[in-house]
Amino acid sequence: MAPVFNVAMLIYEDADLLDVAGPLEILTTAPPAGSTHAFKTTTFACQNPVKVFQAALTVVPDASLQEIEANLESYDILIVPGAQFEPLAQMIPSENGQAIIKLIKRFSALPPRKETGHRVLQSVCSGAWLLAAAGLFANRTVTTHHLCYDTLKKIANETAGGDSKINVVRKRWVEAGSTEAGVRILTAGGVSSGLCATLHLVETLAGKELADWTADIVEYERKHQDDGWGA
Amino acid sequence: MAPVFNVAMLIYEDADLLDVAGPLEILTTAPPAGSTHAFKTTTFACQNPVKVFQAALTVVPDASLQEIEANLESYDILIVPGAQFEPLAQMIPSENGQAIIKLIKRFSALPPRKETGHRVLQSVCSGAWLLAAAGLFANRTVTTHHLCYDTLKKIANETAGGDSKINVVRKRWVEAGSTEAGVRILTAGGVSSGLCATLHLVETLAGKELADWTADIVEYERKHQDDGWGA
Repeated sequence: MAPVFNVAMLIYEDADLLDVAGPLEILTTAPPAGSTHAFKTTTFACQNPVKVFQAALTVVPDASLQEIEANLESYDILIVPGAQFEPLAQMIPSENGQAIIKLIKRFSALPPRKETGHRVLQSVCSGAWLLAAAGLFANRTVTTHHLCYDTLKKIANETAGGDSKINVVRKRWVEAGSTEAGVRILTAGGVSSGLCATLHLVETLAGKELADWTADIVEYERKHQDDGWGA
Repeated sequence: MAPVFNVAMLIYEDADLLDVAGPLEILTTAPPAGSTHAFKTTTFACQNPVKVFQAALTVVPDASLQEIEANLESYDILIVPGAQFEPLAQMIPSENGQAIIKLIKRFSALPPRKETGHRVLQSVCSGAWLLAAAGLFANRTVTTHHLCYDTLKKIANETAGGDSKINVVRKRWVEAGSTEAGVRILTAGGVSSGLCATLHLVETLAGKELADWTADIVEYERKHQDDGWGA
């Protein structure tokens, strides 16, 4: 039987709704009849309930951050969504923000999971700020929401205590290489780019057939990572 | 000051996540600096909490169905998401399903809201089944998820007690005309089509500038209603 990839989806107060819901939709869409689900998702947060996106939706997370932390080795994939810039900037130095950054650091130092041979850390949108604050972006080419390239560079440089040599590019998604331990870092552009990046993730972990099937089910046109969005 | 459109977003057990989150994201995205929000969204459900999309996300709705019902006249827009076909087929004859259909019928018989001059009933994906079951699709051209055109016709015909003369077409969205009372019916195709349809809704109610702004913020390429999705 094909391995099941365990996905931990971070949620936090003011997280962008589609940054969370896009990847969850892609990973939860039922595969063709007769196949088993390739992904099992678990949402988690420091708050319970947690109000996302200016309180547009109130969510009860499946687990607390502490519960995920206690069992972090069992997750193949950790997804970090973004938020509007002001509340996110306020969250980073807070107790919750620091607990999230500590979790990201710990995850980035894990070896690939034995059962699947993979370990992936994926940011969506300004969620990249949290990876930068965890010190993971030095000497890497990455992407984020198109309105915060400079802020991301600033966070990466501050974390590095000098020039981090981060390279931020305008793409739907960017494969940013792997950590020393072997965790693959995948960064998505803004909001909807999370759909594209997650379909790319599905393709690389479970095959192009499943990724194309999922895109068709959700009536979403897959984009190349170099594509724009009509702007 | 420009009028604020009040949006009631239905959620129910097993509703598709992106059917809900797509329109919410578009309607909640902050407008350009100095502008006020054109839309105010309120989620509601018969259940509390309510598990959507095979329990991928657990949501605390802002209001109960009864609370929305008691104040239905104050909503300009009612959005009805879809779900996977089997749980949706099971819900329709249930007590909750019948309460939802009754609410849709009542909404469809309201005059345009005095404060805005508008009243819009929008389905996303297989949410169209619920509008068909409310008897609203006779003699109309509509759309729904591409895997359920025949089921939608069947429901419309059963509700009509014969040939409903419904015409189901493959589009991103279809303006299906207005009810006798003056409620505009807007139907979206499957899942991601809800993003396109809602951007179209924003354009028609609050202007192309805001719709294009929102699409850019969420890095989503607006599609024409005749566009496919690469399949």
